[in-house]
Amino acid sequence: MKKLSGLGEFGLINFLTKDFKPGREVITGVGDDCAVLKYRRNEYLLWTTDLLLAGVHFTEDASPYEIGWKALAVSISDIAAMAGIPKYGLVFVGLPPKITVSYTREIYRGITELAEKYRVKIVGGDTNAYDKLVIGTTVIGVVEKKYLTLRSGAQPGDLVCVSGPLGKGEKTHLSFLPKVKEARKIKRLFSATAMIDISDGLLSDFTRIAEKSRVGGKIFLSQIPCASNIRPEEALASGEEFELLFTARPEYGKAICEAGFFVVGRVTGRSSGIKVFNAAGNLYQPGRPGYNHFSGK
Amino acid sequence: MKKLSGLGEFGLINFLTKDFKPGREVITGVGDDCAVLKYRRNEYLLWTTDLLLAGVHFTEDASPYEIGWKALAVSISDIAAMAGIPKYGLVFVGLPPKITVSYTREIYRGITELAEKYRVKIVGGDTNAYDKLVIGTTVIGVVEKKYLTLRSGAQPGDLVCVSGPLGKGEKTHLSFLPKVKEARKIKRLFSATAMIDISDGLLSDFTRIAEKSRVGGKIFLSQIPCASNIRPEEALASGEEFELLFTARPEYGKAICEAGFFVVGRVTGRSSGIKVFNAAGNLYQPGRPGYNHFSGK
Repeated sequence: MKKLSGLGEFGLINFLTKDFKPGREVITGVGDDCAVLKYRRNEYLLWTTDLLLAGVHFTEDASPYEIGWKALAVSISDIAAMAGIPKYGLVFVGLPPKITVSYTREIYRGITELAEKYRVKIVGGDTNAYDKLVIGTTVIGVVEKKYLTLRSGAQPGDLVCVSGPLGKGEKTHLSFLPKVKEARKIKRLFSATAMIDISDGLLSDFTRIAEKSRVGGKIFLSQIPCASNIRPEEALASGEEFELLFTARPEYGKAICEAGFFVVGRVTGRSSGIKVFNAAGNLYQPGRPGYNHFSGK
Repeated sequence: MKKLSGLGEFGLINFLTKDFKPGREVITGVGDDCAVLKYRRNEYLLWTTDLLLAGVHFTEDASPYEIGWKALAVSISDIAAMAGIPKYGLVFVGLPPKITVSYTREIYRGITELAEKYRVKIVGGDTNAYDKLVIGTTVIGVVEKKYLTLRSGAQPGDLVCVSGPLGKGEKTHLSFLPKVKEARKIKRLFSATAMIDISDGLLSDFTRIAEKSRVGGKIFLSQIPCASNIRPEEALASGEEFELLFTARPEYGKAICEAGFFVVGRVTGRSSGIKVFNAAGNLYQPGRPGYNHFSGK
């Protein structure tokens, strides 16, 4: 559900969804990784949906197993980004008539194996014929009220952190493991103040946290953990990483690093804007703000 | 969510979803209008999703307002078919880059106006660029435990009933009003034993009830309420009607007719199969079992 708030400069979605008003039972609506609804005494319901389109989110060389896997993984990752636990899923597909039953079966095997791994129950869906492969899921999760982690909680002085090396998305986006356990740990041990999963790139997704939290921030290129053969400038912009980007109070800095996570920046006041610094301490101007599904960049 | 159990003769979806096992908190999974999940002491959570594809569920002459309306209406209709109340929705879209902002705005106006009419809160979604228009919704509803109406409750001797005239689907499928209130009334007044919304045709959808309830049935062509200029044989097969098809104990027959609904047949034992009779009392063999999105018929 991550792209709703970040569709390019013209804010198309904010414009389109301005009439979608939250209600009394809606804790958070449009503009976070999941919608957050009232549920039980100590828990919220988390709810997300993701649509995957042939040629946009996967190419012809992706295996059907990977396509099924990714379709569910991106929604589970949205639940993780709120520090929640995924519970149930529905799958919707448009299947080209010319694909074989065994191809279709492989798609469902990808879904089923990931679902079992994360104890997500697939409880239904919608299936249609279509000339291109279209697939998506909607996932419901739960989160204890005290665990709920929104995009809007970052405060000046917080550390900006990531859960793992960046720049590998191109290789891993079809087979990644959503960071559900890591997110729970990050919340439990470091009381993360804000969190998002990196779908469009560290800088783009930090910008979302900054907008929702009404803060600014500094990102230090030299501190970004990079996948092998990836430069920090590339890691900054690389999309479909599905690592967690989170903020936490500075006193947790040592524990965050000791737990294998990475501090890559600082939250500042809103008026400072968002700045990236290179190893020499100079301002770095990214040419490309990150992967944007909508503009097709 | 209606097509999952009825994808043509080869039972593709039953085959594909055989590994989707329900769990303790799943009352009903694959194979009904909605998934039914445990929720509150006296209520279940209902959950459905529907995917609409350009050229399949709407053609180029459909207005964007109608496309948005239908995308949400089909999911609300799934909630109605369980006698539930729709509460929340997410919208996912693939938008062709060449469509205008005002076209897109009209899609969202269609969604928003229907949502307001049914007091459904739109709480998020997922938006992508795509070369064709793809749109869908997922809707959560609630139903009192005593109101829940599945496809599986029909019993031999029950009446087979519909909520309104059939054969109008081609004209109304983009602008219909989901029968939420009617379904609640049907459950309250006639204790409906099974219910479904007619998406693929009276005969096809009755077959789904019959399969899930392990019963047979007789449909009487002469009793089918027909839209103007429609023959009963056409009304029997006409899809995208979104009227309710329900079964109820025979003692409610008079009340059902007095309330403006229609008795069109009888539930029989499973071994009798499903038979359609014409006005002369002879067996009628339909040439076409109903609209099937998957086969494209």
